[in-house]
Amino acid sequence: MIKKISHLGLAVENLEESREYYKKVFGLDSSEPIVAANGLVKASMIKVGEVHIELLQPIGDVGVMSKFLEKRGEGFHHICYDVDDIHKSLESLKAAGMEILIDVMDGIEGPSAFLHPKKTHGVLVELVEKKE
Amino acid sequence: MIKKISHLGLAVENLEESREYYKKVFGLDSSEPIVAANGLVKASMIKVGEVHIELLQPIGDVGVMSKFLEKRGEGFHHICYDVDDIHKSLESLKAAGMEILIDVMDGIEGPSAFLHPKKTHGVLVELVEKKE
Repeated sequence: MIKKISHLGLAVENLEESREYYKKVFGLDSSEPIVAANGLVKASMIKVGEVHIELLQPIGDVGVMSKFLEKRGEGFHHICYDVDDIHKSLESLKAAGMEILIDVMDGIEGPSAFLHPKKTHGVLVELVEKKE
Repeated sequence: MIKKISHLGLAVENLEESREYYKKVFGLDSSEPIVAANGLVKASMIKVGEVHIELLQPIGDVGVMSKFLEKRGEGFHHICYDVDDIHKSLESLKAAGMEILIDVMDGIEGPSAFLHPKKTHGVLVELVEKKE
């Protein structure tokens, strides 16, 4: 079902500061920010091997990313796995007892969905079926 | 400096339960557990593409992993990057203002070190120079 890790989502207070940090400290370039999640986050991607690090800064204080930062501070937010077929994967996950937090939506990279974190051992999991 | 992500360390309450979860839910196999960190953790690795997920269960209640679970619960603990030369990388990171939390030690995969998390935007960072 899982092909590889697509990206790791990290919550950051200030996207520009974090982009500078990854460039200055680790020599890693990041993409120009885009607005995502219905205008509630600014995102920038960093390629590290076959995986991307997705830096996520909330816009305003009403979205889930804003609440996350308030409660947990900066750091790891979610892991996203590449899957072949998102609908088949979700059926299989539901059969294995998983619950869906956000059902299939049209994400930046392709259709994606989130599993409910109460059953994923503290790791928020996203799945994406990438358009090739 | 960074070649790729080597592994993601996840804190778990019960290693066997987590191994079963990854197998049953995602079809991912994990390695037989080993004891690491001077007898303070049990670890098992899961290969996902070019990255490993490292499941870490504390042994006893005095180590950092035990304290982490108590404070934060299960979930993401650290990210480990593959580097070519760990000593050169640490010099470069110190020059960029980073502080070393745990200096070069002989890790499972090769010499490794941890950066102090107060300057890494909430993400505990390990570096490893893998023996080929």
